[in-house]
Amino acid sequence: MNKSGPASSRDGADQDQFLTILSREEALARFEAALFPRELAVEERALSDALGLALASDVVAAMDVPPFDRSNVDGFAVRSADLEAAGEASPVHLRLNDETIACGTAPELPVVQGSATPIATGGPIPRGADAVVMIEHTQPLRNDAIEIRRAVSPGQFVSYAGSDIARGEILLRAGTLVGSREIGMLAASGIARVLVTKKPRVAIISTGDELVQPGLPLRPAAIYDTNGAIVAAAVSENGGDAVFLGAFPDEEDRLEAVMREALATSDMLLLSGGTSKGEGDVSHRIVARLGKPGIVAHGVALKPGKPLCLAVCDGKPVVILPGFPTSAMFTFHDMIVPVLRRLAGLPPRNDARVTAKVPVRIASELGRTEFVMVSLVEGDEGLIAYPSGKGSGAITSFAQADGFLKIDALADQMPAGTDTEVMLFTPHVRVPDLVIVGSHCTGLDVVTAPLARAGLSVRSISVGSLGGLAAARRGECDLAPIHLFDEKTDTYNTPFLVPGLELVPGYRRMQGIVFRAGDERFEGLSAEDAVRAALKDPSCLMVNRNQGAGTRILIDRLLDGVKPDGYWNQPRSHNAVAAALAQKRADWGMTIAPVARAAGLGFIPFAEEHYDFALVTARKPRPAVRAFLDSLTSPETRAALERAGFRPA
Amino acid sequence: MNKSGPASSRDGADQDQFLTILSREEALARFEAALFPRELAVEERALSDALGLALASDVVAAMDVPPFDRSNVDGFAVRSADLEAAGEASPVHLRLNDETIACGTAPELPVVQGSATPIATGGPIPRGADAVVMIEHTQPLRNDAIEIRRAVSPGQFVSYAGSDIARGEILLRAGTLVGSREIGMLAASGIARVLVTKKPRVAIISTGDELVQPGLPLRPAAIYDTNGAIVAAAVSENGGDAVFLGAFPDEEDRLEAVMREALATSDMLLLSGGTSKGEGDVSHRIVARLGKPGIVAHGVALKPGKPLCLAVCDGKPVVILPGFPTSAMFTFHDMIVPVLRRLAGLPPRNDARVTAKVPVRIASELGRTEFVMVSLVEGDEGLIAYPSGKGSGAITSFAQADGFLKIDALADQMPAGTDTEVMLFTPHVRVPDLVIVGSHCTGLDVVTAPLARAGLSVRSISVGSLGGLAAARRGECDLAPIHLFDEKTDTYNTPFLVPGLELVPGYRRMQGIVFRAGDERFEGLSAEDAVRAALKDPSCLMVNRNQGAGTRILIDRLLDGVKPDGYWNQPRSHNAVAAALAQKRADWGMTIAPVARAAGLGFIPFAEEHYDFALVTARKPRPAVRAFLDSLTSPETRAALERAGFRPA
Repeated sequence: MNKSGPASSRDGADQDQFLTILSREEALARFEAALFPRELAVEERALSDALGLALASDVVAAMDVPPFDRSNVDGFAVRSADLEAAGEASPVHLRLNDETIACGTAPELPVVQGSATPIATGGPIPRGADAVVMIEHTQPLRNDAIEIRRAVSPGQFVSYAGSDIARGEILLRAGTLVGSREIGMLAASGIARVLVTKKPRVAIISTGDELVQPGLPLRPAAIYDTNGAIVAAAVSENGGDAVFLGAFPDEEDRLEAVMREALATSDMLLLSGGTSKGEGDVSHRIVARLGKPGIVAHGVALKPGKPLCLAVCDGKPVVILPGFPTSAMFTFHDMIVPVLRRLAGLPPRNDARVTAKVPVRIASELGRTEFVMVSLVEGDEGLIAYPSGKGSGAITSFAQADGFLKIDALADQMPAGTDTEVMLFTPHVRVPDLVIVGSHCTGLDVVTAPLARAGLSVRSISVGSLGGLAAARRGECDLAPIHLFDEKTDTYNTPFLVPGLELVPGYRRMQGIVFRAGDERFEGLSAEDAVRAALKDPSCLMVNRNQGAGTRILIDRLLDGVKPDGYWNQPRSHNAVAAALAQKRADWGMTIAPVARAAGLGFIPFAEEHYDFALVTARKPRPAVRAFLDSLTSPETRAALERAGFRPA
Repeated sequence: MNKSGPASSRDGADQDQFLTILSREEALARFEAALFPRELAVEERALSDALGLALASDVVAAMDVPPFDRSNVDGFAVRSADLEAAGEASPVHLRLNDETIACGTAPELPVVQGSATPIATGGPIPRGADAVVMIEHTQPLRNDAIEIRRAVSPGQFVSYAGSDIARGEILLRAGTLVGSREIGMLAASGIARVLVTKKPRVAIISTGDELVQPGLPLRPAAIYDTNGAIVAAAVSENGGDAVFLGAFPDEEDRLEAVMREALATSDMLLLSGGTSKGEGDVSHRIVARLGKPGIVAHGVALKPGKPLCLAVCDGKPVVILPGFPTSAMFTFHDMIVPVLRRLAGLPPRNDARVTAKVPVRIASELGRTEFVMVSLVEGDEGLIAYPSGKGSGAITSFAQADGFLKIDALADQMPAGTDTEVMLFTPHVRVPDLVIVGSHCTGLDVVTAPLARAGLSVRSISVGSLGGLAAARRGECDLAPIHLFDEKTDTYNTPFLVPGLELVPGYRRMQGIVFRAGDERFEGLSAEDAVRAALKDPSCLMVNRNQGAGTRILIDRLLDGVKPDGYWNQPRSHNAVAAALAQKRADWGMTIAPVARAAGLGFIPFAEEHYDFALVTARKPRPAVRAFLDSLTSPETRAALERAGFRPA
C-alpha cells in the first residue's frame, strides 16, 4: 500500500490501538460518557424551516386558542334558556339583533332574552349567547325574526376560548421533533419562529486505495465507493447535515490534513474503511492524535463490525466505520445513530423499529453481539423476519433486507419462533405485496415487470429450490420457484410438492456450456465433447456452481466423477459464472442461455430445465398472486420471455 | 363579508356547486379518474440529491458487484485441494508467490499447485486460487513459505463476482422511494445519477377575512392562519414541494388572480377555508371556471369534512380543504395524500398506518364516513387508540392525537374492542413513556417538567376524574389525576379507588371566585357574599363549568339551585373561564388560584381541593412512573409547585 515514509513512524500509536476488544455496551458507554452531557447549539428558525428539527426549548402558549368563544356552524347565536320549551308543536320566535357576525367580525350587540344574532362558522359568540342554532334548523319570519322548533343544549356548536390551547400551558416540550402536527399547533398560537437545535454538520470521508467514485470508470481490481454515499444518506435520514468529502488513499500526511480540516469545520467526523489489521490502515493512527480524549474504543465484540473505532477529539465524535457496507450500516444504525440524534436534540427514533418473528434458528457466536440482516414478510400472525445475509460484503442484502436483528453476546443462538426487534434501515420500509422465495432466475424479472408497473411491490429471495419449498410450507412466501428433477419418475418439480402447495407451470430454460466467444478449444463442439476437450488441457480452468444448485447436478453428470482444476470454485449464481469467464478467471462453466447471451459468451446447449412455481394454495386469492399468475400466462409476458431466451411452457 | 360586486355575479356557478353530496369513495374515484393515468415529469439527479424521491424508471445493473472474486479477510489465496490433507498433525507448506494483493491491486501471477499469494481484505482472488486462509491460521516459514494446519473448504472467505449484484438484473424498480439503502445499491454499481419523478410543486392558499399570519398582531375577532402552515408542512412530508402563498380575504377578483397565477406556476393547488355555505365562500365559484373538467366533487359525505371540494383544472388537481384544521387534516391525509404521492411517483405510504384496539364504543352517523382523532397508548397487548377529539375546530387535539381512525359510512358505530387501522399524522409518532388520563391541572406541567428534561415523553389526556379512573381500571394509562370529594366520608379521592389502583398524594389547589381586577361589585367580599352580589345584579353574567367537573360541584353548592344568566355557558377548562372574564364575555366564575393569577384576575378563595393521583399498581415499576413519583416528592418540584400557587401535600 502507498505508505508515506515519514508519517508511518510518526508515533507508536499504531502498535497499541487494537489491543482491547470491548463489549458493545462498554464501547457505547465510553463513547457516550465522553460526549454527554453537553450544551447543544441552537438557532431560531421560521416555522416552515423547522420541519424535521427538534425544539430546543419548551414552548409556552402565550394566548388562548381559540382566542374567543367561537361558533362551529353557520346559524344564530342564542340563549339556550330561551329555547327550553321549543319543539315541533311549540315553536319559539326570536327577534334578530341588528348585526351579522362573520369570521373576523367583533360582535357589538349583546344577545338579550328573546333575541338572536346571525353568526357565521368561526364567528365570535356575542355576550349573552351560550349556544348556536344551525341555519338549517330555523325558519325565517317577516320583521327580522326567526322561528325555531327544537331546544338546544347550552354550549351547542360553541368552541370555548382556550379550549384548544390554554394560555400558559406548555404547548410543546423541548426535544419534540417538529412535524406538520406541531407546526399546526404553533401556528394556531400565533408563533412564527421557534428555537431549534442546530443540525449537526457531519463530515464523511471514505478511505482506501481501491475506491473509485460512482460515475467514474473502474480501474482493474478497484471497486466503487459505496460507503461514502450510503453513510451520507443515512446521516441525512437521521437528523444530520451530511457533507461527503470524497474517498482518499491511505496516504497518512494527506489524509491527516483532510481529517483535520473536516473536523475543524464540522461537528462530527465519520470515516469508513481502513480499520482492519491490513497495512494500509492509517486512519486510526491519525485519529489517535486529533484531540482529547482520543480513541475510547477500537475493536468491539461485534459480528460483523469488530474493527469499529470510536473516538472523541476535543469534544467532537470521530468514528471509523468498518469498510464493508453492511458492517458499516449495522454499526452506524446500532451505535452511531443514537449519538447523532442526541447531538441533533432528537428523541430516540421509534419509527425505525418493528417486532417480528424469526422462522428459523439462527446460530450465533458466543461473546460477540451479532447482527443479522433480515427481510420482512407478512405472515398470518404478523411480521416474519427472514435472515437474508449473503456475506459480510454483500450489498444486495440491502435490496432484499429491510433491516437487521441483534443477537446478544451472551447467546449462542436465536431459537426459531423468537419474537425480536428489527431495526429498519430506513423507516419507510414497505412489506412487499408478493414474496417469491426459492431458485433465482433472470426470467423472474420479466414475469414480475407488469406487477411493478401496477404499483405492486415484489420481493424475490434466492435460497435455492429446496429452501423455497421449505419457506412455502411454512407460509412465508406466496410462490417458490423450483427446478428439481426427480430421477425416479423422470419428471420435474411435481414429485416435490406437498399438500397445501400446487404447481404453476413456468417456463423452460436452456442450460449449457459457456466459454469466451472465439475460444477455439470449444467452438463447434457438443457439450460432452467440450468437457472432454477441457479435461485434456491442463491450462484450462473450470468454474463450478454451489452444492444444491440444479446446475451443479448437470455439471456433475457431465464430469462423471472427475474434479478438474477450478472444480472447487463454486459461486452461487448464473451471473457469477459468466463473470468468471468474462474476467478470464476461468475458461469454461455452465449457465443458462439468456445469461450467456447477455454476457456475450459462447454457448453450447446441454439440457432444458423446467422452471416452475410452487404456489401456496391459501395465498391464491391475494391480488398480487393473481396479478403474477395473470402475467405468467399473458401473451405480452410470453413474448418477452421468448425475447429474453426462455421458452414459456 | 367583503364581496366584490361585479365578480359575485360573474356566473351562476355558485348556485349549483353544493347540490350533490357524494360518498367518500365516489368522490375519490371521480377525482382519480380525472387525473390518472398520466405521464409524470422526470428529471435526472445526482444520487445525493435523490434521497426521498421516487425512481422514474427501472435501474438495471450494468456490472457485477463485486466486479471480481474478492477476499473477505486478510490472509493467503490458496487452492483448497492443496490443503485437503492439512491438520494439526499434518501441516502443509505452501510456497509464497512473488506478489502481494492489496485492495485495488490486480493480481498478475496465478496460484499454481503448492503455492499461495498474500491477499488483503477486498483484494481480487488470483487465477487458480479458490479459497482464502486467514492470516491468523498460518505460520510464516523461512524462504517465503507458510505452514497451514487446517483444511479449507472451496470458496472459503471468497465473495464471488456478481454475488451481490449480477450484471443485467433489475437492481431497483421504477417507483422505488430512494432511501439510504437504495443509494448504497446504486453507488455499489457505479451509478452516480438516476432518473427520478419530479417533486410536484404544490401551491397553498388560505382564504378568509379573519385570518392573520402567525407572528403578526391579532385583530379583535381574528384568528391565526393555521391551515397555511400545517398544509404546507404535510405536503412536504408527503413528497410535494410546498409553496405557501399566504392568506387572502374573500375578494373574488383578487383571489381569482392569485389562484390563476398559482395554478400556472404549480402542479397542484390546495386552498383551505371558504367552503361552507356562508356568504364569503367565493373559492369554489372561482375553481369552477379555472379549467376543464373543473369541479368533480363538492360536498362529500364525511364527518367532519363535508365541504371538501375536488377539482381538476386543465389536468391539474385543485382542492378546497375544509377550513377547520382538524377537518383539513383528515381530508388531506385520507383523500389528498394518495393523489399527491401518485403525482410524486411514490408508492402508497405504509409507515403512516398502525393497527390499534379501540377501548370504548364510538357512535357514528350512518351515511357519512366519520373521522375520529385518537391518541395511541401502549396497552398490555399492543396499541390502544383512545378517541381524543375536542370538537371540530380543535387544534390541541393534534397535540394529544397521533392520528385518526375512520368509521365506514355504512356503520352506525365502532364497537368497543375493535381492532382498527389508525392513520398517523406524521410517521415519526412516538408512543409516550408516561400516560396520564384524568382531570387536567396546570400543576401537572410542573410535576412532569423533569421527565421531559430526562428525555421521557409524557402524554396527558384530560377527560375528568371519573373518565381517568375508568381508563386506569382498563389499564390504558399509568396515572389518573383525580379530585373527587366523597360527601359520605367527607374525604377526597380515597373512597373512589378500586383494587389494582393505589392513591399517590398530589397537591392542594385553591378554588375561588374570579372577576376582573378592579370590579367593585366583588372587591373585598367573601365567596358567598360575592355570589349573592352577582345574583342581585341583572347585568352581571356568570360563566359556569362543564357537568362532571369538580369545580362545577363547588359552583352549584354556592348557587344553591339558582341558575343565573350565563349558567349554561359551560366551558371545559379553568383557562377558558379566565379567558371569558378577561374578554368581558362574563363577569364572574370559578377557577383555581394559579390560573386566576396568571390571567391577572381578582380572586376570592373558596375551597381547597385535593388533587391526587390514582396509580395503576401494575405500572409502578415502569421507569417513567418511577421518575414521575420521584419528581412529585422532590424538593425542586415542591418548590416549583408553591411558586406556581399550589400547595404540595
